[in-house]
Amino acid sequence: MRLSRYFLPVLKENPAEAQIVSHRYMLRAGMIKQQAAGIYSWLPLGFKVLRKLENIVHEEQQRAGHIPLLMPTLQSADLWRESGRYDDYGEEMLRIKDRHGRDMLYGPTNEEMITDIFRANVSSYKDLPLTLYHIQWKFRDEIRPRFGVMRGREFFMKDGYNFDLTKEDALHAYNRHLVSYLRTYERMGMQAIPMRADSGPIGGDDTHEFLVLADTGESEVFYDSAVTDIRLGARDINYDDKAQCQAIMEEFTALYARTDETHDEALFNQIPEERRRSARGIEVGQIFYFGTKYSEPMGATVQGPDGKQVPVHMGSHGIGVSRLVGAIIEASHDDKGIIWPEGVTPFHCGIVNLKQGDEAADAACDKIYAALTAVGLDPLYDDTQERAGGKFATMDLIGLPWRITVGPRGLKNGVVELTSRRSGESVELSPEEAVKKVAEIYRPHQEASPHWQPMAERSFHTWL
Amino acid sequence: MRLSRYFLPVLKENPAEAQIVSHRYMLRAGMIKQQAAGIYSWLPLGFKVLRKLENIVHEEQQRAGHIPLLMPTLQSADLWRESGRYDDYGEEMLRIKDRHGRDMLYGPTNEEMITDIFRANVSSYKDLPLTLYHIQWKFRDEIRPRFGVMRGREFFMKDGYNFDLTKEDALHAYNRHLVSYLRTYERMGMQAIPMRADSGPIGGDDTHEFLVLADTGESEVFYDSAVTDIRLGARDINYDDKAQCQAIMEEFTALYARTDETHDEALFNQIPEERRRSARGIEVGQIFYFGTKYSEPMGATVQGPDGKQVPVHMGSHGIGVSRLVGAIIEASHDDKGIIWPEGVTPFHCGIVNLKQGDEAADAACDKIYAALTAVGLDPLYDDTQERAGGKFATMDLIGLPWRITVGPRGLKNGVVELTSRRSGESVELSPEEAVKKVAEIYRPHQEASPHWQPMAERSFHTWL
Repeated sequence: MRLSRYFLPVLKENPAEAQIVSHRYMLRAGMIKQQAAGIYSWLPLGFKVLRKLENIVHEEQQRAGHIPLLMPTLQSADLWRESGRYDDYGEEMLRIKDRHGRDMLYGPTNEEMITDIFRANVSSYKDLPLTLYHIQWKFRDEIRPRFGVMRGREFFMKDGYNFDLTKEDALHAYNRHLVSYLRTYERMGMQAIPMRADSGPIGGDDTHEFLVLADTGESEVFYDSAVTDIRLGARDINYDDKAQCQAIMEEFTALYARTDETHDEALFNQIPEERRRSARGIEVGQIFYFGTKYSEPMGATVQGPDGKQVPVHMGSHGIGVSRLVGAIIEASHDDKGIIWPEGVTPFHCGIVNLKQGDEAADAACDKIYAALTAVGLDPLYDDTQERAGGKFATMDLIGLPWRITVGPRGLKNGVVELTSRRSGESVELSPEEAVKKVAEIYRPHQEASPHWQPMAERSFHTWL
Repeated sequence: MRLSRYFLPVLKENPAEAQIVSHRYMLRAGMIKQQAAGIYSWLPLGFKVLRKLENIVHEEQQRAGHIPLLMPTLQSADLWRESGRYDDYGEEMLRIKDRHGRDMLYGPTNEEMITDIFRANVSSYKDLPLTLYHIQWKFRDEIRPRFGVMRGREFFMKDGYNFDLTKEDALHAYNRHLVSYLRTYERMGMQAIPMRADSGPIGGDDTHEFLVLADTGESEVFYDSAVTDIRLGARDINYDDKAQCQAIMEEFTALYARTDETHDEALFNQIPEERRRSARGIEVGQIFYFGTKYSEPMGATVQGPDGKQVPVHMGSHGIGVSRLVGAIIEASHDDKGIIWPEGVTPFHCGIVNLKQGDEAADAACDKIYAALTAVGLDPLYDDTQERAGGKFATMDLIGLPWRITVGPRGLKNGVVELTSRRSGESVELSPEEAVKKVAEIYRPHQEASPHWQPMAERSFHTWL
């Protein structure tokens, strides 16, 4: 994208209403605009990141064998009366009457509706196991929405539901979700630690929250510092392998890691003192096993192998997709702006032309742009007349992890500058080498997508 | 996808509530489930098609230089009071009060909100031209929702808005939308004819609707039969070229083609009699130029080259994405089920194993599945124990355009059967040749995506 043709309304001043850094930077970088309390438009740069996160969640859920569908935003109140949650849910549920006076609501979650879909279409244990999920806008009418997209009223969330014949199968689904979530967050460049949690209004026995450590987190968390050393990495996972999923679950949850809701001081004190940590964390996901809590009252049963009707064992599993945009920024920024991890950056590489209108500089920028595009990357080329300092400030603010700076002086020596946003370090390279280096950096991220296909080999010379 | 692991709840019986063929087949093929009047869940097969259409719309809009963002589903009533439409809109607008008693609404369209985004962020003619669009769920509280997703209450729509300094520039935006829409529909395998239309509550001078001819269409249409011979095809389009876009607009709109709302009997009778046609049509998109209708009352002005503030010239442009799913089925089906065009089919090719459990048949199916996947295609393999007749009936109902049938008898002769859903014709080919043929069929559709990258050359032998 050429900046002259894009819509990137950056702000020079800090907006007064923003109390935390992600909210401030999202407003300043032209990612969002508030339309009502807790309701945001996602401007082009913000939408691009949101869509990237959505795609990663889709890819990792489908890799785990989970099946996407899409439930509507509005639901009939009758369904919630069946489960008994219509009256229980409180004022956070946005209640609506349609033109015929029928009671509707804007879905805050979908246990009831997915159970309704299941019971209408599945009747035999032979159709299990089954995990369905969707990524859809939801609404919770928070009394005091704040912190931008971190606690918005209209928010974008992945929620998935497993249906299994036995508790054992349902716990495998639980483990499968835990593993797929770890992989999802790692692809996004985040470390999210599974912590034993409280089940709250969803109910159930087993539940873990995933927390990203950040000073601005809403939860107090307590953990064994060794937990932050564990990574899933590139290990090969077979999501059908119950033992493997169970082992990974145990590996990631054996060490003490809890939120204040479930914190146990006595257990915590058994950790060697030098590894005891308390910090703040942002919740970016949660998994639940809740057995037959919804299937029993709502009649979601299947015929078992013995011919008897049994209620299915269920769980639900959520990732806060819009909230993650804020959480990533909370975890990855400096005083100049956002620092996007490579896996989620809206553009892979910035191109700054130090002298727009200079024939050699313009031509080199065009070639670099074309070469990055040819390897499947998406550069943002600042081709405006803005002075160099302004161009750098914008690139730093919007947080692209890599920047190639092109100027007539460097070109005379055959070099451009490749700069890391995170370290601030620059190296001088030929335009060809700079493109090759950026392509190499992103190659593992491209390959992380199950839809990645090796491209035809082309020499870097032909691109440039 | 292996059918044994998918969620495809097909119905044998015709659902009583469905009056038109698309609604009937979408229910029978397990694409949708009604959750409330005019509100549907998109089950996995339906969601897959919806997402494909969404992606094609995104690709073609971005190819035309239009910039995606995402506005929320809920809006503040205040914005609509500014434009004067809050009271005008009538009962189709779903009005909501939040917990603080504030007036909200579920957006039926977004002229007000996009104008608000524009005026908050753009102040100079130098930032024009600008076209922003989004694809988002909308709500119109139809008094009698019917025909499934064709006239739902909650529906998925692309709406785009252009902001230009002059009427001339805005008319170029209008033409650019017309051309990009033609390309969008053609990629979906549809012919949608632009017809002069009535502007209705959006207002404005220039407007065309895009209509797909189908017996069940809600509009009566009148046209010169020669209009159905024009195709955009693979011609090279430069969306910055005003003359080229204007010429294509004229080419597609010069011949008589109107809906009953704007039909002119006298003009119609000037068409040579043998080319006069009246038929039914389904509206799948509409483009508007409405000048300063919203920018003036809402203060969306820019500083022009002469330093004076001028209201911008605007237009809005919509494609009914969820409705298109129904429209495509109305235009492309037979008495056995849906016939998906290659560009939008949920799976590219069905694989039917005539004898599940036969070692040779199972192995051949696995190889064909892997080979299709390796060329970037997405097959649906019916690996269930269902008898052959049932497998064929399901494949015909869900409408995959190509099917490879594998059985022990054919394999003994080294062949499988490749069948066209549209013509019903079958040919016997080696498994290798069948895969190669399917790959060739889809190659132009893969290349039609701007994100397509040529894959590394691999011999068909190594895939199999």
